[in-house]
Amino acid sequence: MTKKKMIQFDFSKSGIPEGKLKPEPFPLANEGWRDLPFDKEGVATIKEVAKKFSEKFENLIVLGIGGSSQGLKALAQVLLPPKIKSRLWIQESPDPKSVAALLETFDLSKTCLNVISKSGNTIETTTLFEHFAPKFDKVQMVVTTEEGDGKLYAAVREKKLTHLPIPKNVGGRFSVFSAVGLFPLAFLGVDIDSLLEGARKALSNPENAHKNGLLHYLLNKDHGKTISVMMPYSDCLYDFGRWYAQLWGESLGKEGKGQTPLVALGPQDQHSLAQLFLDGPKDKVVTIMTVKTHAKDPLGQLLLREASATAQALHEKKCPCVSIHLDDLSPQTLGELLMSYQIQTAFTGHLMGINPYDQPAVELIKRRI
Amino acid sequence: MTKKKMIQFDFSKSGIPEGKLKPEPFPLANEGWRDLPFDKEGVATIKEVAKKFSEKFENLIVLGIGGSSQGLKALAQVLLPPKIKSRLWIQESPDPKSVAALLETFDLSKTCLNVISKSGNTIETTTLFEHFAPKFDKVQMVVTTEEGDGKLYAAVREKKLTHLPIPKNVGGRFSVFSAVGLFPLAFLGVDIDSLLEGARKALSNPENAHKNGLLHYLLNKDHGKTISVMMPYSDCLYDFGRWYAQLWGESLGKEGKGQTPLVALGPQDQHSLAQLFLDGPKDKVVTIMTVKTHAKDPLGQLLLREASATAQALHEKKCPCVSIHLDDLSPQTLGELLMSYQIQTAFTGHLMGINPYDQPAVELIKRRI
Repeated sequence: MTKKKMIQFDFSKSGIPEGKLKPEPFPLANEGWRDLPFDKEGVATIKEVAKKFSEKFENLIVLGIGGSSQGLKALAQVLLPPKIKSRLWIQESPDPKSVAALLETFDLSKTCLNVISKSGNTIETTTLFEHFAPKFDKVQMVVTTEEGDGKLYAAVREKKLTHLPIPKNVGGRFSVFSAVGLFPLAFLGVDIDSLLEGARKALSNPENAHKNGLLHYLLNKDHGKTISVMMPYSDCLYDFGRWYAQLWGESLGKEGKGQTPLVALGPQDQHSLAQLFLDGPKDKVVTIMTVKTHAKDPLGQLLLREASATAQALHEKKCPCVSIHLDDLSPQTLGELLMSYQIQTAFTGHLMGINPYDQPAVELIKRRI
Repeated sequence: MTKKKMIQFDFSKSGIPEGKLKPEPFPLANEGWRDLPFDKEGVATIKEVAKKFSEKFENLIVLGIGGSSQGLKALAQVLLPPKIKSRLWIQESPDPKSVAALLETFDLSKTCLNVISKSGNTIETTTLFEHFAPKFDKVQMVVTTEEGDGKLYAAVREKKLTHLPIPKNVGGRFSVFSAVGLFPLAFLGVDIDSLLEGARKALSNPENAHKNGLLHYLLNKDHGKTISVMMPYSDCLYDFGRWYAQLWGESLGKEGKGQTPLVALGPQDQHSLAQLFLDGPKDKVVTIMTVKTHAKDPLGQLLLREASATAQALHEKKCPCVSIHLDDLSPQTLGELLMSYQIQTAFTGHLMGINPYDQPAVELIKRRI
């Protein structure tokens, strides 16, 4: 493994002096998501199943929502070339119009169906599964769920479907490095070993993730920055922003606390939300994310100049801003990025005295459906 | 024109008694966007040009950003069937990876290039135009810009390109019912007459738009609701949310004021942001948007039950919630919806004592690029 980090943080425009960003060491809890990148046996199984199914089937339909879709979407949007991306469809919602579009687009006989739900009882996913299952042969289906008493695991046993487990001690929104993310990506040819190598790199160098967590914690608690804007300057990182929004919002939004995540995209949102960021209420901290390889291309150079101009304008308007520079858009860098944000989120929960792994209020909706 | 409105507002869970929602009449200013749906001659020209170009070319590439893309994206996402949607590519950012994907996907010889910029000087769009123009014959190009001294209008005159005007008194983010939105939609076969009929309906019945504006104004000013969440329960309305975010954020975010727009999607964000909405800081008002035709389909019925459960849970947790029910996803309903939000935004600017038509802070970024 190379020692070089693929992600550089710049806190100089954050409004908090670097000297104050000295996080205490984070007590390691028994959190399964930290172990996923080291699970050689689990990864070998996933690769084997992916190979078997991709040899037989061209396309992949994923049924999953929330923790079972967001991380995969984030990675797929970056890592899949257009022609391969067109072979993946992630159906999250029981939206009749999307489902109709899916059926119009895909030849199901050439398609593998991967159904993903941590609990196996997610109503959107089980409803979609009931709708889709009769259209597929059982050798076309892979079910990713935890072993237990969920509906999906019952279907696995009853119909003898191919099953990939999600460990019990891995929460849904922290599950991207389990079969949830890895099976679809491996099916579509992504180098998941490099992805996991990046994730291990983040785990072995958590300092900047902790610093960024402390920074956001201080800006929220002491400086009224109730909104955290994630603004990548790369079209394909928009879904990373949405993954971040789930991780940050659902992990930390409880007991009346929590900083609201807002996804913006550069430069599009310079022409949309930037007016508000610069001249509206001073309630935001903005993360500007850029990709260094853009410097190789005249169009990309404009993109980098715009990112830098936005960071500078925010700084002048006294809106705190963190810049994160990615070396490239490789699986390794993405692995490091996503794992870094998982570390940051867990650490910030620790600072806030919040359990980042539950989501008690969501039950309130479920009981009313 | 039918009298029946296609959009119903429900303010009963907003926390503000309906008796208090009595907006004063709104003084009509000289705002060009209100006239667009009545411009018979302009629309006839757009249809004629669209017919001519769509007879010759299969695909459409639009270069445009902000006000020149968001409204079109919002409508295209709803109104174009998948096969037709695949014939449209909207390139907003000078992102080298997206541009490469576009060139890999489209056969340029079968493609019409529509370049859109109100001023004609938008740096992302003019840079992309310089990049793309040499790859197209001039009979393939349509330029949508205002007459004046912009770079794009200079190119129109110099190269004798087909030109569609944007009236000077129509601001970018209020321009969806001009050639900006209408030409691409007409090219791709959307019934723009119905779209405009819906827009006229909203103009003739502005009461609910005014009420919703007053409601959001009061909740922001008096009740600390600094964030306005737009949460449609329909996958294809996500880009409507992003259009709303631009309209609301850029029009009203100035002089230290402005309510931050946040786009969520149901039910996906029940598994992402809902935990924060229900149990986090009480700084949000949520708009839940549903589509009545979903009731015809078992999958859609689940979607409607989920929307209703979320509204109920928000209400129980004392988070104010507005429900908006769309009759369907037709051009007419969408026209009414978008125009209704333009009215609401202008009206809310009037209540706030803010000019909703400028964006002074954005210049701060432009000067630094």
